[in-house]
Amino acid sequence: MTLSVAIYGASGYTGAELIRLLTVHPDVKITALSAESNAGKAMADVFPQFAAYDLPRLTTIADLDLAPVDVLFCALPHGTTQTSLKAALETRPDLKVVDLSADFRLSDPAMYQHWYGHAHQAEALQTEAVYGLTEIHREAIAGARLVGNPGCYTTTALLPLIPLVGAGVIDTDNIVVDAKSGVTGAGRAAKVATLFSEVAEGFHAYSVGNHRHTAELDQELSLAAGVSVAPTFTPHLIPINRAIYATIYVTGDPEAIHATLAERYASEYFVNVLPFGEVPQSRHVRGSNFTRLGVVADRRPGRAIVISTLDNLVKGASGQAVQNMNVMCGLDETTGLKQLALFP
Amino acid sequence: MTLSVAIYGASGYTGAELIRLLTVHPDVKITALSAESNAGKAMADVFPQFAAYDLPRLTTIADLDLAPVDVLFCALPHGTTQTSLKAALETRPDLKVVDLSADFRLSDPAMYQHWYGHAHQAEALQTEAVYGLTEIHREAIAGARLVGNPGCYTTTALLPLIPLVGAGVIDTDNIVVDAKSGVTGAGRAAKVATLFSEVAEGFHAYSVGNHRHTAELDQELSLAAGVSVAPTFTPHLIPINRAIYATIYVTGDPEAIHATLAERYASEYFVNVLPFGEVPQSRHVRGSNFTRLGVVADRRPGRAIVISTLDNLVKGASGQAVQNMNVMCGLDETTGLKQLALFP
Amino acid sequence: MTLSVAIYGASGYTGAELIRLLTVHPDVKITALSAESNAGKAMADVFPQFAAYDLPRLTTIADLDLAPVDVLFCALPHGTTQTSLKAALETRPDLKVVDLSADFRLSDPAMYQHWYGHAHQAEALQTEAVYGLTEIHREAIAGARLVGNPGCYTTTALLPLIPLVGAGVIDTDNIVVDAKSGVTGAGRAAKVATLFSEVAEGFHAYSVGNHRHTAELDQELSLAAGVSVAPTFTPHLIPINRAIYATIYVTGDPEAIHATLAERYASEYFVNVLPFGEVPQSRHVRGSNFTRLGVVADRRPGRAIVISTLDNLVKGASGQAVQNMNVMCGLDETTGLKQLALFP
Amino acid sequence: MTLSVAIYGASGYTGAELIRLLTVHPDVKITALSAESNAGKAMADVFPQFAAYDLPRLTTIADLDLAPVDVLFCALPHGTTQTSLKAALETRPDLKVVDLSADFRLSDPAMYQHWYGHAHQAEALQTEAVYGLTEIHREAIAGARLVGNPGCYTTTALLPLIPLVGAGVIDTDNIVVDAKSGVTGAGRAAKVATLFSEVAEGFHAYSVGNHRHTAELDQELSLAAGVSVAPTFTPHLIPINRAIYATIYVTGDPEAIHATLAERYASEYFVNVLPFGEVPQSRHVRGSNFTRLGVVADRRPGRAIVISTLDNLVKGASGQAVQNMNVMCGLDETTGLKQLALFP
Repeated sequence: MTLSVAIYGASGYTGAELIRLLTVHPDVKITALSAESNAGKAMADVFPQFAAYDLPRLTTIADLDLAPVDVLFCALPHGTTQTSLKAALETRPDLKVVDLSADFRLSDPAMYQHWYGHAHQAEALQTEAVYGLTEIHREAIAGARLVGNPGCYTTTALLPLIPLVGAGVIDTDNIVVDAKSGVTGAGRAAKVATLFSEVAEGFHAYSVGNHRHTAELDQELSLAAGVSVAPTFTPHLIPINRAIYATIYVTGDPEAIHATLAERYASEYFVNVLPFGEVPQSRHVRGSNFTRLGVVADRRPGRAIVISTLDNLVKGASGQAVQNMNVMCGLDETTGLKQLALFP
Repeated sequence: MTLSVAIYGASGYTGAELIRLLTVHPDVKITALSAESNAGKAMADVFPQFAAYDLPRLTTIADLDLAPVDVLFCALPHGTTQTSLKAALETRPDLKVVDLSADFRLSDPAMYQHWYGHAHQAEALQTEAVYGLTEIHREAIAGARLVGNPGCYTTTALLPLIPLVGAGVIDTDNIVVDAKSGVTGAGRAAKVATLFSEVAEGFHAYSVGNHRHTAELDQELSLAAGVSVAPTFTPHLIPINRAIYATIYVTGDPEAIHATLAERYASEYFVNVLPFGEVPQSRHVRGSNFTRLGVVADRRPGRAIVISTLDNLVKGASGQAVQNMNVMCGLDETTGLKQLALFP
Repeated sequence: MTLSVAIYGASGYTGAELIRLLTVHPDVKITALSAESNAGKAMADVFPQFAAYDLPRLTTIADLDLAPVDVLFCALPHGTTQTSLKAALETRPDLKVVDLSADFRLSDPAMYQHWYGHAHQAEALQTEAVYGLTEIHREAIAGARLVGNPGCYTTTALLPLIPLVGAGVIDTDNIVVDAKSGVTGAGRAAKVATLFSEVAEGFHAYSVGNHRHTAELDQELSLAAGVSVAPTFTPHLIPINRAIYATIYVTGDPEAIHATLAERYASEYFVNVLPFGEVPQSRHVRGSNFTRLGVVADRRPGRAIVISTLDNLVKGASGQAVQNMNVMCGLDETTGLKQLALFP
Repeated sequence: MTLSVAIYGASGYTGAELIRLLTVHPDVKITALSAESNAGKAMADVFPQFAAYDLPRLTTIADLDLAPVDVLFCALPHGTTQTSLKAALETRPDLKVVDLSADFRLSDPAMYQHWYGHAHQAEALQTEAVYGLTEIHREAIAGARLVGNPGCYTTTALLPLIPLVGAGVIDTDNIVVDAKSGVTGAGRAAKVATLFSEVAEGFHAYSVGNHRHTAELDQELSLAAGVSVAPTFTPHLIPINRAIYATIYVTGDPEAIHATLAERYASEYFVNVLPFGEVPQSRHVRGSNFTRLGVVADRRPGRAIVISTLDNLVKGASGQAVQNMNVMCGLDETTGLKQLALFP
């Protein structure tokens, strides 16, 4: 069986990364690509690395024929996503859809309204959508028509924290997530703040105290804990292209924390828990779909440092999207995703 | 008056940075430079950027004549420092010395023994030495013969934390210092771990849970607080040359925290407290002797994020050493140190 | 004597670099700064590193009072420069002006029309302007009212090539300049092509075969050679902030080439010729006004490789502009410019 | 059929890159890995990104059983290679060997002696070895027992130059190769010159005038041209991990040059010739086995700039080695090598 796959918003970084991954996926054929402002161009005009591979020409969404499509990835910016997907699913109710925007991550319409300042334009779909953190919601994803793929920061923080709050081995009132991201997370829009000369040779935090992504964190942690959880979360910008690196400070017994994670992920291919006391590095997941987790005891008794790292464009976006597609379509979950990190 | 200045250990990064700063200091003449393994060479053979400036040739310490020297900077590695300085001060008891190693930072001989695994070789000097955090111990520095220049991580963390624990506006039991450093902090020794290909395009924490620098943190914070303080401290490596960036999580009223720092540093030239809610960037202190501090309210009431950044080779090492020399010699503290950051 | 200095276009990179250099210049007071789109803001709102220094608020050019100004630096984009400076010099015919744009570098109106596609809007000033390559045109600069500061690529190539074609020690028909630039040369405008994620971790040439800067090269080399000279010139982008590095392939006797340069620049403070066979590195001029030149014999007899490097924002722009101001105002040429490179 | 593959010298960068590529090769099983100084360790102890993949433990060469091995890759340093391979082929004369060192690239024993200062220790093998530039020597490689895999610089320069000198469309007496390399080309040995702080934020040439790699260039170009060819060649270090970027200056008709390359490589999967006038970027081959070639007319008639770029660890080393293995073993040449570049 070969799946016919279309991508809405192919000319951004997550769209390009989907193509990079899907071109080596044995069960997929990319049959349609949309990109509003680049419609009519070849994908290789926008990302020259695709010149050697035969891809469909970019079209508008309006011109993209969904009829032969089995799976639709949506990598559109926030806002246009909800109306585009509503239309797509009205046309083709049997489509399988993985959405990479933030539009279908929050399950509560009131919460969506709170963070985004307006009512959701496809509320029935919002309610239907499954949160696509594969290792956590695998069964629901397997039966889903629409998956809201998690954000890169949240995937990094939730993979270690959900089992820990679920098992009750950490204090849910004192969680600090100090997170660092590579620059590709900011996308391909031309902005002064992400020019090379503004980013290179420096480091800084941003959106300190109240980042929009905390809504996702709170939703999933509260669900797992059974009580309301609201960690402190600070994002920073690392002058590299790819990575999320989260240093998480928790209260609890370090060895119990490690044991909880080691057991929870023992049979998960893409989540690797290091031996107790070892510290992961982002370069060892670069370009791959792996997450690496480490647990270290703090010198203060009863405190631990949990570290989680992944590639923001792979496990933090397009790789997990492909992983979800595999689950939704009954394929082996690792199909097309076994490449190891590009290091050095 | 022109001060005659000598440097022990001129061929490392902090030695070179001392020379960069001292060549534009109007009241200093560099009269002697030691570098054991490079003795006999010109400084420009080791650091070509000094070719345009007339500097004394490198010698061994044994061959360096201290007779005409007013101020000695010591940038030797840990271990050789204590015996070398003991000898120097026996020869010239009236020398003024600023030591950039870790040898004279801990005032308690027992604590030194604990962290370094052996008794101090110059215990009388250890007791005599003043901890050179200029803004905090200025008066003692003015009268000191021997100053132990603080580490780069500790300077970054102590400048905000000392006033806060001193004023009692934060909980001393729940301080988390998530610190990030540029690579020059690792020095010029050839090691696989700091090769370009091992560091570029990635990010990682190291010495998690129990870094040696915490001894300095504990000493100074406990002194300021009047109770024992032992923060959690995690260092990370940023793939850039220069910076320390500390994101500090504290419990307390954010506005009181900001007010405490703004008032404490209102008249300090080198410590700039940003308006409440603003976040500093390391690039804006690069190459300069400034520290920039920001305070932001966390979304959790009663929690704040305090951010502190400086250039590890300037305010974190050689710049503060020159600042201390200025204080010890009765010069205006900012002499030779007014250059603004090199950005972009 | 303190010179009153104004800057048109203070909020770009060359404007900011002028301020960095002028704040440590002992004979200058910055009295006015223009920035059309940022008028009304403090300079520290645009470049936070200036927070510690007392600078005038940004204004429009229309609101900037030239009456008390002695020296005007113009760092405006191409196009607006010629009309703005024409107006300024009509208001204040006795101003001294250093222009950092390309508007006053070409002396021939026909050549200007050819490369820029329109007639010059201030042709009398174009004819009057002196080409500000300080070491080459120092006497004319000393008497000039308006200096057209050279481009960064051209300064790097011309400093070695002018003496060589002037002395006739190289073949003027076979010069290849393979040049590489840091990213700040592209300025602060938001463009996809200079986003961090598009530039980091890669390398490429651009404007291959026919770059606009070759007009400057041709003008000055032909003037020095007495015959028409048109070298091959290829610019590349290095993923770093600051540097120009030119590897120049010439036909001629390598030792004669070296001797010519060594003699020509023996007494020039800012142009350092390395011993024969040694190769300069851009990092050793970073942040400084120095140019470093090396000459190496090729393995093919009668061929040499000449290497030239400088900081594109200093000797390639704002540093040379200050150097020219010093010459125009009768100050020691090195005043305020003696800082050595920031390395590492 | 599954090939049993062993690697001598698995713990260097080219060894690790071989493993990265071979773990997704469908017809290969890695059965033995040697690494003298790391013998006894798991590969994941040396390169943690391999933790998720089941690999044999590292052994010494002496302990490595060649009996079940079909293909041996040798990634040892120069010097140890020749004796190790001589022994291996005496034990197992039917082995297929791809050597990634410089030991089997020069076919002439006298030339080897000239450049390396001693007689070759396995002269019969030196004579037998085939130069492994796949697109050029494919037929000989298909029948070879021992292939000397080309260097990264030489692969980059030879792919465009061999067809051009072979077709007689460029002047063989005036070729300038200005080449730039990422830092991984320097290997994993701890050296001051390749420390992060020495390499970042700067640029420089090295081995100017007479690099050892020119021997390979001369051998292959002279063979193709039928006359002695000795281009000028200058290597530079780019502060990024992976890339070779060669800007090549030639004399000849630009369109004829482009046509020659376009025709020559029309059916080659891994060598992509861009449309006339277009310029390749290294980032678009990063992590892939592709080479991208561009041809641009210089403004001087009869001169052209030919640009060639590849990933030094893939097409410049381990990728081409796998490509050669595919050819030697009768597999489709692209097997396991179709991944596109990791960009951004």
